[in-house]
Amino acid sequence: MPENPLTEETLTVAALSESELLAMIFPRLALGGPHGAATLLGPGDDAALVASPDGRTLISIDTQVQDQDFRLQWANGYQTTGFDVGWKAAAQNLSDINAMGGKATSLVVSLTLPPGTPVNWVVDLADGLTAAIRELGATDCSVAGGDLGRGREISVSVAVLGTLAGGSAVLRSGARAGDILALAGTVGRAAAGLALLESDTPVRSLAAAQRALVETQCRPRPPLSAGPLARAAGATAMMDISDGLVRDGRRLAAASSVVLDLDPLELKRHTEGLSPASDILARDPMEWVLGGGEDHGLLATFPAGIQLPAGFTAIGSVQAPGNDINPGVTIAGRVAGATGWDHFAD
Amino acid sequence: MPENPLTEETLTVAALSESELLAMIFPRLALGGPHGAATLLGPGDDAALVASPDGRTLISIDTQVQDQDFRLQWANGYQTTGFDVGWKAAAQNLSDINAMGGKATSLVVSLTLPPGTPVNWVVDLADGLTAAIRELGATDCSVAGGDLGRGREISVSVAVLGTLAGGSAVLRSGARAGDILALAGTVGRAAAGLALLESDTPVRSLAAAQRALVETQCRPRPPLSAGPLARAAGATAMMDISDGLVRDGRRLAAASSVVLDLDPLELKRHTEGLSPASDILARDPMEWVLGGGEDHGLLATFPAGIQLPAGFTAIGSVQAPGNDINPGVTIAGRVAGATGWDHFAD
Repeated sequence: MPENPLTEETLTVAALSESELLAMIFPRLALGGPHGAATLLGPGDDAALVASPDGRTLISIDTQVQDQDFRLQWANGYQTTGFDVGWKAAAQNLSDINAMGGKATSLVVSLTLPPGTPVNWVVDLADGLTAAIRELGATDCSVAGGDLGRGREISVSVAVLGTLAGGSAVLRSGARAGDILALAGTVGRAAAGLALLESDTPVRSLAAAQRALVETQCRPRPPLSAGPLARAAGATAMMDISDGLVRDGRRLAAASSVVLDLDPLELKRHTEGLSPASDILARDPMEWVLGGGEDHGLLATFPAGIQLPAGFTAIGSVQAPGNDINPGVTIAGRVAGATGWDHFAD
Repeated sequence: MPENPLTEETLTVAALSESELLAMIFPRLALGGPHGAATLLGPGDDAALVASPDGRTLISIDTQVQDQDFRLQWANGYQTTGFDVGWKAAAQNLSDINAMGGKATSLVVSLTLPPGTPVNWVVDLADGLTAAIRELGATDCSVAGGDLGRGREISVSVAVLGTLAGGSAVLRSGARAGDILALAGTVGRAAAGLALLESDTPVRSLAAAQRALVETQCRPRPPLSAGPLARAAGATAMMDISDGLVRDGRRLAAASSVVLDLDPLELKRHTEGLSPASDILARDPMEWVLGGGEDHGLLATFPAGIQLPAGFTAIGSVQAPGNDINPGVTIAGRVAGATGWDHFAD
């Protein structure tokens, strides 16, 4: 501890050793017990040990970087909390397991922190991680371990493990002409919330419906029950929409060598909840539906004639590419123009 | 592709889309086949799928950040290559699995890159990852997936999965008074190499023995066969030395509630190979042996009377704490003063 202890409000990570900071965080990662059902050995050794009951492990990794994936202070005045960043880091990783039809078993977290980061912000991040796991319903999952380091910008890398419980993963490559194209969760809300954050409409003046859109951007709620249900129902292909409906749809279409044709009436229906943002910003909400990704909804294809599992609604159909149409995304037969998010494109 | 293609020498990641950059990297991650023996489903979907043959998975995560864990250009003129960073990222993660007595099955890699990063540097990083996996002998391991994003500084997060092949993990908490304290691999060499990099001795003027020390810093070689051998031989506790012999020893001692007493003659022996650096820098090599960590050697304890497994040599003994001595590290009975690396301490 420092010789002249700072007040709790201004205590920064520079004043603590790595082990002191870890000692503050680890107790907050316990989810009502020492660790989740799948974690056999939690933090404290060189690696954690997690159950992989069917002898296989799903694994994915994602990183959020300050000023790229979030701003500490947005144009409209909203200050991103550690809780927001922790929640979002957990949510987007849990979504990757959901998109394979699996259930998450554990997260490991690597935090890079500038020395001036308030300790409270980091503690809040730990609380956001565990809150997302609990509230999104990842019941067997816990934070099994982690790593702390220093950098010039805040960066949060999370790796997630998951299980298929004996089933087959639902890949992007299995869609067939004639399948139903369906969506679980929302699309466009996180992008509408981002537009509000980037606007000059002060956060304090936002109405409840507008704040709800901001919350989808800062604390997305991927539909975690939908992925395993889709797998059980025989989904032929699936992915989560993290970079935009059209951009991610093109990836699924390319992997499956098919055309995904979106129904304009269904797209229109998804714009309706976005009017609290589109009205005051004078924007076309359809660009958020087509190009916005961070709701982490699921895009899946199902054989024709089956009843869609709970949470899914049809938004189009799968068609064969032809002489005049390459694998990709169309809207009522016309090639979609909007693109989603690319980390390196201008 | 850009309208005015840059020469290959100056092509930066800003000129490529995320998928174009991934398309350049993924083929280089194939280790003589589509993927390693344990990888059931490699890159291209929302998550990878890796075999966990005994129904359990070891998992760890580590991040390297530019200007914290490496410098792109060191004081002595050495320019860190992408190959160095890729190698070290793989090596330190493989070491975490080794330290539990396990074998690595896969890596997933999250890269954060400033837009001005040369594409060649990133391709070289991919080559360094695969070279380390192959040359360090992690035969079943491969890069199962990854993630790319943008940031102000280069950051490489790697999560590693591993298997215990039915055995028990060797924890930090199992050392007992009377055990032998043993070391596999080297200690102090990476710290000596770091001191050379931070010196004003031009890299071009370094002799072969000095360059070898620099190489231990930039491309450490953890003894990957030693971890599983130690487990099979009945090691009671184990960890890898990533932050320094004394600092990491204290962690093992605290977890086991014991005193680790180091033999000064053995410590002295480890200083001998460091004279190519200590002589020209006028430094005491013992500080590197006690405080330097990045060789990623293994510190382990074994029951007295057993034959140490290949690669290990005794460096001391395990003793019970007493009224006048707390759990910790001593050298010939006197409390060790040197400390290793703390990410947040001054």
